[in-house]
Amino acid sequence: MAFDRLIEKIIAMQNPTVAGLDPKLDYVPASIKEACFAKYGKTLDGAAAALFEFNKALIDALCDVVPAIKPQAAYYEMYGWQGVKALCDTIAYARKKGMFVITDGKRNDIGTTMEAYATAHLGETEVLGQDIEAFGADALTVNGYLGTDGIKPLADICKEKDKGIFVLVKTSNPSSGELQDMKLETNESVYEHMGRMCEAWGEELVGESGYSAVGAVVGATYPEQLKEMRAKLPHTFFLVPGYGAQGGGAEDVKFAFDKNGIGAIINSSRGIMCAWKKQGLTEEDFAQAAKNEAVRMRDELLGAIGRIGG
Amino acid sequence: MAFDRLIEKIIAMQNPTVAGLDPKLDYVPASIKEACFAKYGKTLDGAAAALFEFNKALIDALCDVVPAIKPQAAYYEMYGWQGVKALCDTIAYARKKGMFVITDGKRNDIGTTMEAYATAHLGETEVLGQDIEAFGADALTVNGYLGTDGIKPLADICKEKDKGIFVLVKTSNPSSGELQDMKLETNESVYEHMGRMCEAWGEELVGESGYSAVGAVVGATYPEQLKEMRAKLPHTFFLVPGYGAQGGGAEDVKFAFDKNGIGAIINSSRGIMCAWKKQGLTEEDFAQAAKNEAVRMRDELLGAIGRIGG
Repeated sequence: MAFDRLIEKIIAMQNPTVAGLDPKLDYVPASIKEACFAKYGKTLDGAAAALFEFNKALIDALCDVVPAIKPQAAYYEMYGWQGVKALCDTIAYARKKGMFVITDGKRNDIGTTMEAYATAHLGETEVLGQDIEAFGADALTVNGYLGTDGIKPLADICKEKDKGIFVLVKTSNPSSGELQDMKLETNESVYEHMGRMCEAWGEELVGESGYSAVGAVVGATYPEQLKEMRAKLPHTFFLVPGYGAQGGGAEDVKFAFDKNGIGAIINSSRGIMCAWKKQGLTEEDFAQAAKNEAVRMRDELLGAIGRIGG
Repeated sequence: MAFDRLIEKIIAMQNPTVAGLDPKLDYVPASIKEACFAKYGKTLDGAAAALFEFNKALIDALCDVVPAIKPQAAYYEMYGWQGVKALCDTIAYARKKGMFVITDGKRNDIGTTMEAYATAHLGETEVLGQDIEAFGADALTVNGYLGTDGIKPLADICKEKDKGIFVLVKTSNPSSGELQDMKLETNESVYEHMGRMCEAWGEELVGESGYSAVGAVVGATYPEQLKEMRAKLPHTFFLVPGYGAQGGGAEDVKFAFDKNGIGAIINSSRGIMCAWKKQGLTEEDFAQAAKNEAVRMRDELLGAIGRIGG
């Protein structure tokens, strides 16, 4: 199962961090932008090329310290199909460097449409008898509002192709409670109900680690719910956003881990991408600064959760 | 407001239909595929070119009869960034032909990430002081599971750029009730709660038609809920999937309309794209068959709802 692969990497590196690659053009150093705009013009092509160069340098700097990246689809779509090409290229580059790739797309639909998303992001597209990876990530974030019809096609691909998904359960944002915290007449909250569905969807996809291919997104900014969900969802691996810029700290996210220090991966996006600002470095040193921050974050997390994998 | 523009087109054409452009390669006639694969090889480029040629022919045939198209992002992403380019090209082509374009992406995220999606699909991306449309649709489907934080950036762009969104409220699939029908302790169901949030999100975005820029997706396969939502959400314009292949008929979808016969647009995807199969025509006649079906569907809908716009 895909999360067994991820957990092995996390244990080997003793680092439960995923680097969020959400590259706004503003984050890209002037030297990279100048070179790309000189080559491709002041166009979406130029912007997308700059994003990919930025990502490559980050991946080169991080791949020995961080087990996974999480590119957020929105930031690539913002630069049109050219940006989406940069997403494809980033995924391929990170996988070549041995990293586990989680595409953060929060995709959701039903039936054959969800099959198309599953094929796009985790599977292979058939073109005249040839199977071609369209995006080729290891895992995809998804939204479960449509119920089992929207998850089944993903679960099938997870099983067949050794991939994983993360279903939104309790998100890290201030307004997440407007729907997710509402109490149902069963006395469960909406997020508890969604969490329980994740356990059910993953039931036949549990790997050697004890975690299934159906993970959940649970935000660092709600440590109580993180603790509660960890206890109630023993087979569900967590992707935890909200550390750093959004306010979650190591003492908050430690609740995402089981007694062996596994069961979760913690995301940092801006904290890593823009680390040079906090380290008194120049923007040209962004990659080294990102690595410094990844090391600092790793040590901080290990300080809170202890050795990973016993 | 964007849905005023759409409603004007619907009234002028007396047709509340949106053609879903969800082009699987299997739907594309052999002659188009052969030409594209000969030109671009047996690659994603070839497949994507075939999708775009197929869409162009459909748009040419439909643009005098149908006011809007709804390309479903999943089917384009399945063919990689090349497929996403075909989505961009399809949107531009349909808009040039005067059609209203709803990108069915069911996007969802928070804060700056949702801003990136809003910019990508409905706004303009700044590249060195130039504003460039990345996708340039008129409206986007979105998922409201994350609450107001995920809708606010869209609402801002709707206001500024005259665009619209459709939030998933009650989807057409069999398992939609697993979460959406759950009763909250307030005695509302989850979908009613979501619907009420749509009214609130659209409150300051109501146009001359009486409908706001925040629409809702409510499936044709649940006519009772459609009727209930129409009564409870007087300012929320509906996008109604599930007509045709999924089982909803004109007698089901008539409940989506107000007493003036406005307030909704009904989607048909496979029914239109693959109409040649039911008309005893060959696949090469797909475009004429699609138009025939669009006319038949229009007449069937008008039969059920009467004249549109009084």
